[in-house]
Amino acid sequence: MKNNTDISGDFHSNTCYSFTMNLAEKYKEVRKRSEEICKPLKTEDYVVQPISDVSPPKWHLGHTTWFFETFVLLPNLIPYSEFDPRYNFVFNSYYETVGERVLRTDRGNLSRPTVEEVYQYRAHVDAAMNLLLEKELSAALHDLVILGLNHEEQHQELLMTDIKYILGHNPLFNAYTDKVARKKTPKDEFVNEFLFIPEGIYQVGYLGDGFCFDNELGRHPYYLQAYKIARQQVTNEEYLEFINDGGYRNHRYWHAEGLDWVRNNYITAPMYWHNIGGVWHNYTLNGMKELDMDAALCHVSFYEASAFAAWKGMRLPNEFEWEAAAKQLDWGKRWDWTNSAYLPYPGYMKADGAIGEYNGKFMVNQMVLRGASEVTPPGHSRISYRNFFHPHLRWQYTGIRLAQ
Amino acid sequence: MKNNTDISGDFHSNTCYSFTMNLAEKYKEVRKRSEEICKPLKTEDYVVQPISDVSPPKWHLGHTTWFFETFVLLPNLIPYSEFDPRYNFVFNSYYETVGERVLRTDRGNLSRPTVEEVYQYRAHVDAAMNLLLEKELSAALHDLVILGLNHEEQHQELLMTDIKYILGHNPLFNAYTDKVARKKTPKDEFVNEFLFIPEGIYQVGYLGDGFCFDNELGRHPYYLQAYKIARQQVTNEEYLEFINDGGYRNHRYWHAEGLDWVRNNYITAPMYWHNIGGVWHNYTLNGMKELDMDAALCHVSFYEASAFAAWKGMRLPNEFEWEAAAKQLDWGKRWDWTNSAYLPYPGYMKADGAIGEYNGKFMVNQMVLRGASEVTPPGHSRISYRNFFHPHLRWQYTGIRLAQ
Amino acid sequence: MKNNTDISGDFHSNTCYSFTMNLAEKYKEVRKRSEEICKPLKTEDYVVQPISDVSPPKWHLGHTTWFFETFVLLPNLIPYSEFDPRYNFVFNSYYETVGERVLRTDRGNLSRPTVEEVYQYRAHVDAAMNLLLEKELSAALHDLVILGLNHEEQHQELLMTDIKYILGHNPLFNAYTDKVARKKTPKDEFVNEFLFIPEGIYQVGYLGDGFCFDNELGRHPYYLQAYKIARQQVTNEEYLEFINDGGYRNHRYWHAEGLDWVRNNYITAPMYWHNIGGVWHNYTLNGMKELDMDAALCHVSFYEASAFAAWKGMRLPNEFEWEAAAKQLDWGKRWDWTNSAYLPYPGYMKADGAIGEYNGKFMVNQMVLRGASEVTPPGHSRISYRNFFHPHLRWQYTGIRLAQ
Amino acid sequence: MKNNTDISGDFHSNTCYSFTMNLAEKYKEVRKRSEEICKPLKTEDYVVQPISDVSPPKWHLGHTTWFFETFVLLPNLIPYSEFDPRYNFVFNSYYETVGERVLRTDRGNLSRPTVEEVYQYRAHVDAAMNLLLEKELSAALHDLVILGLNHEEQHQELLMTDIKYILGHNPLFNAYTDKVARKKTPKDEFVNEFLFIPEGIYQVGYLGDGFCFDNELGRHPYYLQAYKIARQQVTNEEYLEFINDGGYRNHRYWHAEGLDWVRNNYITAPMYWHNIGGVWHNYTLNGMKELDMDAALCHVSFYEASAFAAWKGMRLPNEFEWEAAAKQLDWGKRWDWTNSAYLPYPGYMKADGAIGEYNGKFMVNQMVLRGASEVTPPGHSRISYRNFFHPHLRWQYTGIRLAQ
Repeated sequence: MKNNTDISGDFHSNTCYSFTMNLAEKYKEVRKRSEEICKPLKTEDYVVQPISDVSPPKWHLGHTTWFFETFVLLPNLIPYSEFDPRYNFVFNSYYETVGERVLRTDRGNLSRPTVEEVYQYRAHVDAAMNLLLEKELSAALHDLVILGLNHEEQHQELLMTDIKYILGHNPLFNAYTDKVARKKTPKDEFVNEFLFIPEGIYQVGYLGDGFCFDNELGRHPYYLQAYKIARQQVTNEEYLEFINDGGYRNHRYWHAEGLDWVRNNYITAPMYWHNIGGVWHNYTLNGMKELDMDAALCHVSFYEASAFAAWKGMRLPNEFEWEAAAKQLDWGKRWDWTNSAYLPYPGYMKADGAIGEYNGKFMVNQMVLRGASEVTPPGHSRISYRNFFHPHLRWQYTGIRLAQ
Repeated sequence: MKNNTDISGDFHSNTCYSFTMNLAEKYKEVRKRSEEICKPLKTEDYVVQPISDVSPPKWHLGHTTWFFETFVLLPNLIPYSEFDPRYNFVFNSYYETVGERVLRTDRGNLSRPTVEEVYQYRAHVDAAMNLLLEKELSAALHDLVILGLNHEEQHQELLMTDIKYILGHNPLFNAYTDKVARKKTPKDEFVNEFLFIPEGIYQVGYLGDGFCFDNELGRHPYYLQAYKIARQQVTNEEYLEFINDGGYRNHRYWHAEGLDWVRNNYITAPMYWHNIGGVWHNYTLNGMKELDMDAALCHVSFYEASAFAAWKGMRLPNEFEWEAAAKQLDWGKRWDWTNSAYLPYPGYMKADGAIGEYNGKFMVNQMVLRGASEVTPPGHSRISYRNFFHPHLRWQYTGIRLAQ
Repeated sequence: MKNNTDISGDFHSNTCYSFTMNLAEKYKEVRKRSEEICKPLKTEDYVVQPISDVSPPKWHLGHTTWFFETFVLLPNLIPYSEFDPRYNFVFNSYYETVGERVLRTDRGNLSRPTVEEVYQYRAHVDAAMNLLLEKELSAALHDLVILGLNHEEQHQELLMTDIKYILGHNPLFNAYTDKVARKKTPKDEFVNEFLFIPEGIYQVGYLGDGFCFDNELGRHPYYLQAYKIARQQVTNEEYLEFINDGGYRNHRYWHAEGLDWVRNNYITAPMYWHNIGGVWHNYTLNGMKELDMDAALCHVSFYEASAFAAWKGMRLPNEFEWEAAAKQLDWGKRWDWTNSAYLPYPGYMKADGAIGEYNGKFMVNQMVLRGASEVTPPGHSRISYRNFFHPHLRWQYTGIRLAQ
Repeated sequence: MKNNTDISGDFHSNTCYSFTMNLAEKYKEVRKRSEEICKPLKTEDYVVQPISDVSPPKWHLGHTTWFFETFVLLPNLIPYSEFDPRYNFVFNSYYETVGERVLRTDRGNLSRPTVEEVYQYRAHVDAAMNLLLEKELSAALHDLVILGLNHEEQHQELLMTDIKYILGHNPLFNAYTDKVARKKTPKDEFVNEFLFIPEGIYQVGYLGDGFCFDNELGRHPYYLQAYKIARQQVTNEEYLEFINDGGYRNHRYWHAEGLDWVRNNYITAPMYWHNIGGVWHNYTLNGMKELDMDAALCHVSFYEASAFAAWKGMRLPNEFEWEAAAKQLDWGKRWDWTNSAYLPYPGYMKADGAIGEYNGKFMVNQMVLRGASEVTPPGHSRISYRNFFHPHLRWQYTGIRLAQ
């Protein structure tokens, strides 16, 4: 036994909510942020669903509202007048306990309720929530509201990635905003140093008394072999070398299923990359731009991340290697694909009722991502946070961090 | 030789355009009608495409406009400033000659151009067309404008059927209009008489000097055996007997491919029929209503039409039996499925260029429908008119007329 | 009215059975021929089903036997001991009336019954049939046996085409036989003359008192415009010109569904054609051979036939044009695709019971082929014979005859 | 730190090869066993492939032979005359490095090479291998032969499961053998005790100097929380309670993807279970038999295993919990699904060349199974052995062991 460092306990308080802000204010702030994200949209942008993974923005606005109405208001606020009972059918996402739902691939077929009606729905529920939040809440109810807000924050990130997909897969390539979010990265920031982490037992999982999701609970020791992990993420320039070296065509770097995915979908570059007249561009929230070579690579699948690492003669970190080193890493621009499958922590128990469907039932066939991205809401990230997606997906802000 | 009656020549003048109206007025009237059809829509209704057969209303508005811009204005009006060259990509439907196009199943993914932009596009093209129509046109150009107007009228019917599909497959079942289009049919109208038509040679195909589509040309003699044909169409009540008699489950009445269609799609009633608490309703443009038993049956596939006829011990007429009897039939409420495959008439020749793709390339695997429906634009019907759809489709206003 | 020739009555007696041969002998001869077709096969060749359209040879042998057992022996021979009641499940092809059946795409999954057992089944049924055929048969039973023999002859042609598919889609390309069936066609035979047929009323459909299928019955007058039809079929050389001229890539020649079929299946030549080192070969029953330029083209779909005709500036004949000219045509090498959809003749009535499923239920979405091929059993062809397949299929011996 | 037990070192020598037997004898023995497994088959049984996961037995016989020819003989025996160069195309399974291969789903379409030819191929390669094995082999070559034999043993288990699938999905339900393999389990054996394993660091992975696969290498410490694990596997009777309690219909027990799998495939019982007239039967190698309630459950997917455990209020062990307890478990009848995803051990490196494709490229989207089954070849099991399949598959001999 060489090392037994507790690495998450003291850190999370920086990233979790400051609970000096009261719950009603917090509620207002989070809810407002969802609507601000949608400000630049035209009505039409709220409606479409180009692929099943993407949801229409109006659905996100309605679904997060439905969560408060169904789980908070209906059981707890008396009297409360339900806005429209048919919305349960329209805005339920995947909660089997709460009844039939619109198939995920059907969401983009629904022109009604209109965007205006969805905003009325939000106003109706917000007014009722304000009434509720004026009262003294039980601890359980308080936690449920906090869960609802974290749920809405997760959908805020999805709103951003889904809007980008909707605009970035339209032949007109409209920009989402004219505000340039990020300065061009100065070249000299990228001395991609590898940190050495010694062998030993590390404590992983959430520690603290703030909010976290149930999949982070069950803090436990994990034995790690010595390893090295990159402080920074792979850049567009580095990835372009992989492309130019024929990386997409060389089967040796790929999982068998990854190779099938590449071939069946004619994948030759990250999502949003376009080679226009020999010059690489990528679609960004500011529209189609020439590729910023020094920026962190974005929008790759786990298969691509893993193949790139193999081409480098390295590998992806597992989620505990990531967590053990997290305080020393630069992070927050792209989600890091890890080589860990999404599985329960020791002692994981599903909550009773519909809320118990939040995480556990997705614990198969998905890979864990760690960190956060530039479209993650402020205050929503933790080093114990476990994001997860299927290995072929890449419309999230996903990047690559190497380990060896 | 018993009988050789020319049945279409003198009749079509009642249904074709009166050419006392000049072309500019006609243009204005037809174009305005498309926009009037869309008046009751919310912006969101313009955008969605629930199935590949249905197109988003804004696409119809743009595509019919693109037809005038591409085929009429660009080659003939100088100077003409193209509204947006990228629209050729977005609004081309199936004309291979005119370059790449958005896949039909992708139309519902496009939030841009917005509805407002599409209306601006229409205004831009209409202004240019007005300039053009003030001039003396060559006969060919005159005919091309007439073709464009007939094309738009065809899309007006599709607009109605697609809007109905969009609203009628939304769990909220909103009405398109509060105006009740049709009075309840008086019971005694339905003495469904069978007309006897003697054996003989009949002239079929378009005769006259007005507009018709190229698939109606090539008037020619056709030898018919003696037959009987129903003056009126099958009612909801008659069809319900078929359902109640287990018609959907008895393989004897069905084509093999029809039976596969029934089984794979769990078909048990016409489209829009819902059995709510034991009472049959159907979705109409006025919303969900109790089924009007005396109304003409609507929204059945060729397979269903054919199975119903077999159950009755009768059959569907072929398209020439229909045409030979047309003047004596009630028609205009539902398209009649015929038992004729959609094939070229003797001497049929495709026009040169993109316009030649209008009809000929669809002449396989489709069945002919004759007549017109309550959502066919006024003046757009002729007894030589040949409508055609694949045998499993039923979102059009399709009904059943029996023969024996 | 210029011409009204009865063209099928006097001719069919040359091609139909001579009924001087008694039924027991005929039965023996037809049944033996099926087994002779299979003589060159290895046991393994009897078992596989590479595509759903192809059936395993042992299935053909069993299914034709099942027809006699189910429709002839079980209702008519007392006592008759059924070979194995489970075979009804295995060898029923598509008769819904007779109970559940093995899905067509599952036939190639069945290793049992073994080939040996299928031959035992044939022997068992043949022995019983011999007993039955010694007796005096009612006219209906006599006709049923004749139908069974014609049914088996149809399967003999399918046996040949399916065996060719099985061997010709195996990377080893084994020959079916070393016997060379056909001499190389002498070049000078191919003066492809066009016959002129005058306008008029022609009688079409079967006339006579021999056997024919129900889809040929209902002899009736049909009015034809004057036309020209090629005496001979298109050769490989002529079709190669179409390929070399980019015919597969030029959308103008194709039906829209044909073009989709070409693109989705990467079709660039007829089935069995392989360009090996720049030299065109095709797989034949004698193995892979250099293409015989003068031979009649074989193994094209309706879409290809139709596109070739369009490229030539001509068209395919319809089935009545074919029938009216049949006595003057060379025919018997390839089935001619016609531009007629497979539809019932006037007065067509399905027989009662399972036999009624023979033809009628396939009368949608298929095209008529006329003539016969070199693998059609001797005596099985008639000029009123109506073969039919879906327009994309080409594993039959299908060719092209032009009309204009 | 409470406990740090090395559990695999001293045990594997019981299950690995005894290397007192020389390599030539070993080769002969393993090769012979494959052919003995196929003795009860009819020629037809060797050919079919009812689903893509199952391979035709003749393919297994050819592919294992191809492995020796391609990797051992061609590079190492001079002179060696290749049996047929086209076999590389036919019998390559998934080695991208070695060139094009027959698509997995096409294997069942190949009637040639015949079974007899495959046996000739085996004899040809065996004769050459005998020559080679008489010589002094380098250590690398010796290891390659051992790998080839282990590869063939893996295919022996697949041969058994594929043969069972082929016969057990044929409507005739023929038995594979009349020899009853297993006595009925005595009831009192099943006191399903739970073992308590204390918290601590355990060494996992292969230890020893015998053969193991590369995915077992990299023995390393793993920290386990205290847990309980069942000594025995779940019985048919226990699983039937789950069925009778509506387990397949209650979404709470299922992963979301598991529930989709159940619904889309109408799953209501383990594979091979049939409810015949109210009595549960299952297809076994002895044919269809009444269900043995006391026997260990077999042929369930990971989804079913996981749902059953959830219904019990327990869970599946992870692969290291299994390995740490292995010496105290009864095992060898069914593979145990674990709740571990198939991922590389620390320091895992792919071998160079085609052999490097053996394991690594499958390390995504699959779950680990531990133990062995009654159709695992003798001597092929190790407690460090890592089997892996996709979570929906169940044609292997898979069962359930509970943990808590």
